[in-house]
Amino acid sequence: MLLHHTLGNGNFNTFADMAAHIAVDVAKLTDPRDAAAQIDHALRECYLQSRPVYLTLPTDLVKKKVEGERLKTKIDLSAHKNDPAKEDYVVEVVLKYLTEAKSAVILVDSCAVRHRVLDEAHELIEKSGLPVFVAPMGKGAVDETIPQFGGVYAGDGSNPGVQERVEMADLLLTIGSVKSDFNTAGFTYRTSQLKTIDFHSTYTRVRYSEYPGVGMKGVLRKLIDRLPQLNIQPGPVPPQNITPAEENLDDPAITHDWFWPQLGKWLQEGDIVLTETGTSNYGIFDTRFPKNVTNISQILWGSIGYATGSTQGVALAVKELGSARRTILFTGDGSFQLTAQEVSTMIRHKLKPILFIINNNGYTIERFIHGMEATYNDIQPWKYQALLPAFGAQEGSYKTYTVKTKTDVLNLFQDPVFASTPYIQLVELFMPEFDAPKGLKITAAAAARRNEKA
Amino acid sequence: MLLHHTLGNGNFNTFADMAAHIAVDVAKLTDPRDAAAQIDHALRECYLQSRPVYLTLPTDLVKKKVEGERLKTKIDLSAHKNDPAKEDYVVEVVLKYLTEAKSAVILVDSCAVRHRVLDEAHELIEKSGLPVFVAPMGKGAVDETIPQFGGVYAGDGSNPGVQERVEMADLLLTIGSVKSDFNTAGFTYRTSQLKTIDFHSTYTRVRYSEYPGVGMKGVLRKLIDRLPQLNIQPGPVPPQNITPAEENLDDPAITHDWFWPQLGKWLQEGDIVLTETGTSNYGIFDTRFPKNVTNISQILWGSIGYATGSTQGVALAVKELGSARRTILFTGDGSFQLTAQEVSTMIRHKLKPILFIINNNGYTIERFIHGMEATYNDIQPWKYQALLPAFGAQEGSYKTYTVKTKTDVLNLFQDPVFASTPYIQLVELFMPEFDAPKGLKITAAAAARRNEKA
Repeated sequence: MLLHHTLGNGNFNTFADMAAHIAVDVAKLTDPRDAAAQIDHALRECYLQSRPVYLTLPTDLVKKKVEGERLKTKIDLSAHKNDPAKEDYVVEVVLKYLTEAKSAVILVDSCAVRHRVLDEAHELIEKSGLPVFVAPMGKGAVDETIPQFGGVYAGDGSNPGVQERVEMADLLLTIGSVKSDFNTAGFTYRTSQLKTIDFHSTYTRVRYSEYPGVGMKGVLRKLIDRLPQLNIQPGPVPPQNITPAEENLDDPAITHDWFWPQLGKWLQEGDIVLTETGTSNYGIFDTRFPKNVTNISQILWGSIGYATGSTQGVALAVKELGSARRTILFTGDGSFQLTAQEVSTMIRHKLKPILFIINNNGYTIERFIHGMEATYNDIQPWKYQALLPAFGAQEGSYKTYTVKTKTDVLNLFQDPVFASTPYIQLVELFMPEFDAPKGLKITAAAAARRNEKA
Repeated sequence: MLLHHTLGNGNFNTFADMAAHIAVDVAKLTDPRDAAAQIDHALRECYLQSRPVYLTLPTDLVKKKVEGERLKTKIDLSAHKNDPAKEDYVVEVVLKYLTEAKSAVILVDSCAVRHRVLDEAHELIEKSGLPVFVAPMGKGAVDETIPQFGGVYAGDGSNPGVQERVEMADLLLTIGSVKSDFNTAGFTYRTSQLKTIDFHSTYTRVRYSEYPGVGMKGVLRKLIDRLPQLNIQPGPVPPQNITPAEENLDDPAITHDWFWPQLGKWLQEGDIVLTETGTSNYGIFDTRFPKNVTNISQILWGSIGYATGSTQGVALAVKELGSARRTILFTGDGSFQLTAQEVSTMIRHKLKPILFIINNNGYTIERFIHGMEATYNDIQPWKYQALLPAFGAQEGSYKTYTVKTKTDVLNLFQDPVFASTPYIQLVELFMPEFDAPKGLKITAAAAARRNEKA
């Protein structure tokens, strides 16, 4: 039977088989007696592994009845438990190096968020007193108001002074580290594995000794419980829970070096900040967050267009949860054009995000990698503010802003109505075409060097 | 090395391996000495099989030099040749049934287009004098101005009188037939394989006898060359190279039954008409084309959003070829919202398509299948005409039209400036929310019955 949405070759498994390359569980639901167990299993794997799963079912299964008894029992989502003997061994090894260290630091990265060890990370930071840094994908994972917070570590793309402090440490404890190109500012870490302990979701690595199956959730808990008073020399780097902004107010142009630190003063506790691949993902290095600010990005994958759709999902979740958290998007004009119609869905659901669209006339990150004047980095100039009424937003149910100068930014950040997010708001933020945050420049230069060498 | 646009697991083959499920050739270019041959092979398979191929290469291969000598020789794109003995045998069998038949008809479908046998099909139609019909996916494949042209055959969804004529035929010759759900109006063919000869790209089937490897290109050619005078009784159906429109001019509402036949009077020789999955794909059944009109759709796959992007590609190709052919899109509001930003690309390239957006307030085809009032078939009401300036179209370089009544349509179709496509033009065509072409209603009812039975 040749159905639409197939290749017309009679194979109904094609897309499930494709998905099997990227999913941790593929459930083909064909028998109502198995379907509920298959679905529960897929949900469990999705949650525990924080990775995609795929369900496929024929139309004729949609209306089949299944036994509902199992709905009375919650799905077991308890984390994998380490073998206690192995775990004890690993904790002893870690404690040995940690108590010997004089200038240890902690680096928190994305997998600490994805695999839910932020409570353990914060307890370790507090009890140990060690300086803590975040990788770009770990931005927002650590309370940036605590005195031990030292800023963003991204190799050569780090906040001022951070690279020196992290790379001179005699012990580096990484929690959920992902050493991808964009997350390391183009592989510019200069750390030694001989001075590193890596905590991961499914294994621990101490220097070059690997402990498969010994995951960080249990190890960190036991480490906190057994942690003695450490002999710490915090080192030369002052806490960076504030960042200095460029202060050239004579030039009205809104540079990245000026904007992102300013943003930190305007953000509020509990904000959810989405940063798109490109200037925003790197600019946010220089923004210090109030407590409980969540930063959502996908630096490893790096797919432009993600952040606008993600903003729709976040704002909808916030609404459904009855939360007062603000949803704030930062995206570039080029990225925004890919998924702009998600703004229509936001309007339809009466969501109230603030959308910052950086109008800098093209694909800036690509300009820095592949040629500043290359025409394929130019984009069609949209009237971004006109999109809201075009997508059906009613007069009085939205507001747009044109922000072209530093003064415009400061005025906007003092506007209490804007800050209160009464409705969907779109800020067209004009920035110079060839300006970028330092982290982006470093990463792009590294990529360009790799291309050149190839 | 963990690069962006990967899963971060070090596997650079994931996406090529996924593509292998849907591509007829996957070329992983890793050695400059092989790359050119691999690329040529992929291009050849893509062309000859009319199916996707996939190329993947690491960044460091981009700037590698390859031997250019082979560029002097064209890629061999000559069609597969049948075994002459087998081909002769098949042609004799076909001729036996064909010369015995009294009321044979020809049905031309999509694979006649995709596998390039339209010249052979037309020669066979002309020399045989047989009545010819097209399946929905074959719309535009046959010259609709010839007297033998009988209209669209889609089982219960056929043009008036067509089903009777095709299904009473004592021999049905199908060329490139695809019996998919949407193409057969929900599997409503009532033809018998005992009275059918199927010509396909890679095999021929005469009643239940299959001849693998004997493709239609060679068989049709030989059949034409050897065709004697046939003993034809054209049957009771008059030629349908015009279609009657509903003539209720008292009701100003633009119904499908009224609109699509009118369209045929306005179309010009050489037009390229793109019809989106939904009302347009079915409405076009009732439009008779002038000579050399191409209709582009993807009824088998049925992915909404396709037609708008495809229009961009067609209009760009027309421009690059220096052709005067007009590019004319018919899409629904729901489908259009998925890929609307392709209109921005059209503006950017100064393309001059005519975009008909049927504003009927939601997913009409889904209403007919899954519930007329179901809220998930509602969409956000856009101001479609406002999108052109929002996407950066300059005053004077585009035009939009609001068309709400039959009189509006007739006036528009008499506007010589509109017809001359001086720039990009967008027609917002308001149609009643619960109206649909007959073919769609039949197909949706069949799908709803299958769902109900399941």
